[in-house]
Amino acid sequence: MIFRQLFDSVSGTYSYLLASRRGGEALIIDPVLEKVDRYLQLVRELDLKLVKAVDTHLHADHITGLGALRDKTQCITVMGEQTKADVVSMRLSDGDKLTIEGLALDVIYTPGHTDDSYSFILPDRVFTGDTLLIRGTGRTDFQNGDPRQQYESIFGRLLKLPDETLIYPAHDYKGETVSTIGEEKAFNPRLQVKSMEDYVEIMNNLKLANPKMMDVAVPANMKVGFHQEEIARRDWAITAEQALALVGKPEVVLIDLRERSERERHGIIPGALHVPYTTLQENIAAGGMLHELARSTSRRLLFYCAFGERSAMAVQAAQDAGIASAWHIHGGIDAWRKASGPLTR
Amino acid sequence: MIFRQLFDSVSGTYSYLLASRRGGEALIIDPVLEKVDRYLQLVRELDLKLVKAVDTHLHADHITGLGALRDKTQCITVMGEQTKADVVSMRLSDGDKLTIEGLALDVIYTPGHTDDSYSFILPDRVFTGDTLLIRGTGRTDFQNGDPRQQYESIFGRLLKLPDETLIYPAHDYKGETVSTIGEEKAFNPRLQVKSMEDYVEIMNNLKLANPKMMDVAVPANMKVGFHQEEIARRDWAITAEQALALVGKPEVVLIDLRERSERERHGIIPGALHVPYTTLQENIAAGGMLHELARSTSRRLLFYCAFGERSAMAVQAAQDAGIASAWHIHGGIDAWRKASGPLTR
Repeated sequence: MIFRQLFDSVSGTYSYLLASRRGGEALIIDPVLEKVDRYLQLVRELDLKLVKAVDTHLHADHITGLGALRDKTQCITVMGEQTKADVVSMRLSDGDKLTIEGLALDVIYTPGHTDDSYSFILPDRVFTGDTLLIRGTGRTDFQNGDPRQQYESIFGRLLKLPDETLIYPAHDYKGETVSTIGEEKAFNPRLQVKSMEDYVEIMNNLKLANPKMMDVAVPANMKVGFHQEEIARRDWAITAEQALALVGKPEVVLIDLRERSERERHGIIPGALHVPYTTLQENIAAGGMLHELARSTSRRLLFYCAFGERSAMAVQAAQDAGIASAWHIHGGIDAWRKASGPLTR
Repeated sequence: MIFRQLFDSVSGTYSYLLASRRGGEALIIDPVLEKVDRYLQLVRELDLKLVKAVDTHLHADHITGLGALRDKTQCITVMGEQTKADVVSMRLSDGDKLTIEGLALDVIYTPGHTDDSYSFILPDRVFTGDTLLIRGTGRTDFQNGDPRQQYESIFGRLLKLPDETLIYPAHDYKGETVSTIGEEKAFNPRLQVKSMEDYVEIMNNLKLANPKMMDVAVPANMKVGFHQEEIARRDWAITAEQALALVGKPEVVLIDLRERSERERHGIIPGALHVPYTTLQENIAAGGMLHELARSTSRRLLFYCAFGERSAMAVQAAQDAGIASAWHIHGGIDAWRKASGPLTR
């Protein structure tokens, strides 16, 4: 496995680049906007393909690199389903897997610091975001934070991992780079409590100032969206209602860009082909199957995904590959479901 | 293996704590004075015994933690034989092993940044000090730095390690935590040179300001010595010349505190017992062999080591254990050799 811990000294943020091998797919956890060029240089140098950029939660202390990484690499942006960010390509739920080629991280919902805080688990390590820090825990006094939920997330979920599990948090301000579950159980001062009430008492009396960047970072991090509206203005987007009228029509090929896990969870539009977004480029390039389908028939490609972001990028990619006859469903499966579109499993 | 990378954000220094197992011996590489309490807390929490504190070279940008760690734990301080630090317990040479229980690091001399720069190698990683940094190299314009020597150290030694070897340097200022030999070969801008002369040209034209801490750190780092003079004033120290007259006398037991590698390299005073410094405590405590020897006979213990530091600490430890009849040889084997004392292998 390729594993890199990267530090932003301004915000004290740790970001993590992961891949199973040189030349393979990569994901990055909690990227910082100002460091995006550095991440991309490292991705190139290690001969990786960045396919996912993941935030453990909506950060209040730095601006996320998700949008910039997506704009520069067309990677999939990923957060938990509770996120208030405007557009995120893929939204995870408790029990999902976060996958790239050769790696699958278990996804667990660990609210408390915020109501959209997730942790990601590999066999020997866990990425805890701001839920569990080294000799500390994330504050719970804004962004729908809740010390009771955090207590459950930490004691009920994270501390049940094996003692030797390495902890890689989103921040450290004191120069620590890693800890273990066993160590935090024994030595994290905030975890030496007898009950949830003890923990709540500690967390409700921290009296911390707001993060310096908060008023800038939170609004910015809620607006990382790819501009589907721009696509819509150019008549490449159709609404879910318009799409409903097209299902089953021979002149349209529906193409589902989501991953298997999303399809199993949220259902499929009947008759749609499955072309996972990460394989799109090879499919729409000359010689690819979608390319052939679009060029050798008069059928129109109608892309859809979870929320319309991947599909908007797919329309642009199709045009770049010389395929003019491509649309996408604005708002994705989310809009489709609200329009009472039929779904199968 | 227990491995912790620890960061001092003020000086941008990485320190490394290493041990083979919980409950075992530990060493620390490039500790920073201001962080000593944190290291010791971590050592306690991980249930380790700190037995060696090592500097890769005499630092100009921070004050070393070697002296404070030795004073607080009686650990052995370690540097290369070229060091200008006043007293260092153990001095390493090219080809030596740096060992603790369960771990042996290959010692290679890699001058260039300074004339006392060493690197330490484990099978999968190398600690490069300031010789080879991530996408950079240590400056060569003071402290007997030499770009030609550095070129040899890097191209002739470090870059001959396997490409996948992880590089852990003494500093990074940009938020990198680790690299590999293969990556630095390909992407370190200073290593993209055709010849030694190219490299010398680059290094001689960096025009860097002196480190802010230099005027404080260098003199401080040259005076980390344990105060043998204090021991001498109290009549617990004897000179090498005085010791010469005692060799072979039945009323004295000579005790060599050095490690096997130092004994093989520099020779042994004939007739001396071997009690490695790291095992001293168990030997001088009640029930220990040295304790028994000192108490059950009227013989005097005469400790010696490489330079007199370990032996001065041994005298104090013996007194603490209730053994009053202990001396040490001021200046150790180094002084003994200068006094033409006999040595065997």
